[in-house]
Amino acid sequence: MSQITRPRPISGFPEWLPEIRMIEQQWLESLRATFESWGFAPIETPAVETLDTLLAKGETDKEIYALRRLQADAEDASDAKLALHYDLTVPLARYVAQHFNDLVFPFKRYQMQKVWRGERPQEGRFREFLQCDIDVIGVDSLPIAFDAELPLIVAEGLARLGVTDLRLHVSNRKILSGFACGLGVADPIPAIRILDKLDKIGAEGVRAALTGALGVAADQAERLLALGTISSADTGFVAQVEALGVRDDALSQGLEELATVMQRLTALPHGQALADLSIARGFDYYTGTVYEARLPAYPGFGSVVSGGRYDDLASGYINKSLPGVGISIGLSRLFAKLVAEGRITAGPKCPTQVLVVVPNDDRVAVARETADGLRRRGLAVELFHAASKLKRQLAYAERKGIPYVWFPPFEDGADHEVKDMTSGAQGPADPATWQPPAATTP
Amino acid sequence: MSQITRPRPISGFPEWLPEIRMIEQQWLESLRATFESWGFAPIETPAVETLDTLLAKGETDKEIYALRRLQADAEDASDAKLALHYDLTVPLARYVAQHFNDLVFPFKRYQMQKVWRGERPQEGRFREFLQCDIDVIGVDSLPIAFDAELPLIVAEGLARLGVTDLRLHVSNRKILSGFACGLGVADPIPAIRILDKLDKIGAEGVRAALTGALGVAADQAERLLALGTISSADTGFVAQVEALGVRDDALSQGLEELATVMQRLTALPHGQALADLSIARGFDYYTGTVYEARLPAYPGFGSVVSGGRYDDLASGYINKSLPGVGISIGLSRLFAKLVAEGRITAGPKCPTQVLVVVPNDDRVAVARETADGLRRRGLAVELFHAASKLKRQLAYAERKGIPYVWFPPFEDGADHEVKDMTSGAQGPADPATWQPPAATTP
Repeated sequence: MSQITRPRPISGFPEWLPEIRMIEQQWLESLRATFESWGFAPIETPAVETLDTLLAKGETDKEIYALRRLQADAEDASDAKLALHYDLTVPLARYVAQHFNDLVFPFKRYQMQKVWRGERPQEGRFREFLQCDIDVIGVDSLPIAFDAELPLIVAEGLARLGVTDLRLHVSNRKILSGFACGLGVADPIPAIRILDKLDKIGAEGVRAALTGALGVAADQAERLLALGTISSADTGFVAQVEALGVRDDALSQGLEELATVMQRLTALPHGQALADLSIARGFDYYTGTVYEARLPAYPGFGSVVSGGRYDDLASGYINKSLPGVGISIGLSRLFAKLVAEGRITAGPKCPTQVLVVVPNDDRVAVARETADGLRRRGLAVELFHAASKLKRQLAYAERKGIPYVWFPPFEDGADHEVKDMTSGAQGPADPATWQPPAATTP
Repeated sequence: MSQITRPRPISGFPEWLPEIRMIEQQWLESLRATFESWGFAPIETPAVETLDTLLAKGETDKEIYALRRLQADAEDASDAKLALHYDLTVPLARYVAQHFNDLVFPFKRYQMQKVWRGERPQEGRFREFLQCDIDVIGVDSLPIAFDAELPLIVAEGLARLGVTDLRLHVSNRKILSGFACGLGVADPIPAIRILDKLDKIGAEGVRAALTGALGVAADQAERLLALGTISSADTGFVAQVEALGVRDDALSQGLEELATVMQRLTALPHGQALADLSIARGFDYYTGTVYEARLPAYPGFGSVVSGGRYDDLASGYINKSLPGVGISIGLSRLFAKLVAEGRITAGPKCPTQVLVVVPNDDRVAVARETADGLRRRGLAVELFHAASKLKRQLAYAERKGIPYVWFPPFEDGADHEVKDMTSGAQGPADPATWQPPAATTP
């Protein structure tokens, strides 16, 4: 006998048993329904982009998985270098530029796909994971109304799935950079990036980083820190920022935009959305609104939703300004956490509603006809695969979590019967009209 | 201004405009519903397997895309080598072995995922493509009933999508190898592989290949060719094979199995399923039933469905025999062909049923309330993003293919009105009760 090696999971590449995957699948369908109810259209881009496309934005090269044909020959050297996408925003920018003439703007799309990052795996951080993104792209301009609409859609979609404890943190980069400029900070971008870490490194850490290598003056650092600690569940943040006495045009515009967004987010339960000026988001391409959402129940867990506005993502591809705003649910991350916390629990191991048993070899045709008839009426039905002891057939239904077992007539003229596997009740049933109680309808 | 480079498609990696992707999405949902109605449970495996797993079976290494972290460091050398899966059967074998104790057998799963092959792209052959697979795995044994059920499920699933012109070719490897053994051919596997090319290289080509390098005697080659040309829409093939006068146990068993399968496939319209003894399928792991389905309307196009029975796919992983049978729809291939042939045509560019217009800045709140109300009633609704000329708002609906435009009251007390964009008819409507005609309900 050859050597037996039970395969082991590959770290960072999660997969589920069917009973959990069925729930993940229902989640995706539910999110899809929410996104479509707001008029978003689906697209799917290849898993692969050229390396040039992926490296055109930001500083993420070290996380990228490049592809190589295992038996590459000399010819291949001329092929474009390909790599797996690490988010769905960069592919969207490429898609919009490539298909520009075939799209109608504002272009609203959703996209639910795997992305890959070659990071060291740790809790809640995978190398392959599902993202669910919605974005709106305009030509030349894009009303701020969309910045307010996207978090509402995500909150609604997740609330439908029972995730009502999401807290949305919203800010606007113009506030941060305008404030830094107004203060006279020489290089605002690195300063903002440091401020974004307030959560992780604390006020002392931020202070040290700002006044250290970056050379920000101590009083400037204090005012930046004061800005970074402002938050409000309504538009109260505006007065708080103004009280810090910094004047700048971008700052004013950012405050106005964020106030508009917060005004609209009052449609959510009070406190679910927070204007939080410590939020900046790592990716460089955001230029206005930025979002981040967390589950306060799991303080160290980090964000499960993120996004923001970008004004020039298609630059370099197309001679137009294509501003956009997008938000992304880190679905694998969120879903895996809720499974780990016991908030998502496995149901049955298959979608089958009814198992039709095969009493004996003579009754195979009758049993099959019964199963086919129930299936034609829209039920999910399995015919047991062989005439065998009823006990064995019932055990199969039991172990797979199939809620009903159907007994076709054991002899001509006898009744059909159906057994409710939960209650154990069994009685006559008409295959032409029988319906399971609503709760088990898929 | 920086250089402008409109991105170009990557050859072999197809992507669709939203109006086609929406249809592909409906196809996937419809197939999912069919698979679940027969009791198949969904699984999804990572895009990635270890290279060892992928190379354990068959002779496909040259088509594999391996992964490499772009900024790999010395540490990585110890990582398992990873590569993209090239089908869904090898990952299934690994999955079943890995999760053996958590699965209930016979394990019935469906899986609809992208797979990748580093082949030269050509018509109908992609480097990234969607496969929809259903498989059943048993422990120690698996009734032949499943071999008959799988093609029925696929034919039903595709017929629901309007693909009623699929022709199923079914054979059994035991017939081919048993016949070759019974004939006294020394090495039956290569002989079968040559016979499988009858379609492509013709009788003369097969004859030459068999008697050439393989050294099969001329009369043996003639009888193999005679076998390879046998086909019947029913169980008639049995008598035709027996008339060739070769006796072998495996041959007899193969004939019996194929007869059982063909008997069950009489449930399909006559002629849709064909016992066709020229079919062998390239992959080495098939051991019994083999399937292939084509669209006779496109003779040179090749197969769009394939599969078969394998008796030992999990060998090497687990100390048990896990026989299985599976069938796979080459969805990207089939779908792209039907789009190219004009059998699938684009509908609207978005799922939106109703566009609510914004008459002017004073009526934004009323318009939003109307849109939210319609959406809560289950309709897919967009609110136009800005108060602007009605002509512009109507043009947006027109270009996106949105079937209804809703006019909220332009002043307090006035009526709501709805315009049917197809007929042009416009009249009063109640937002609390209005429904679009059934045809546009998603």
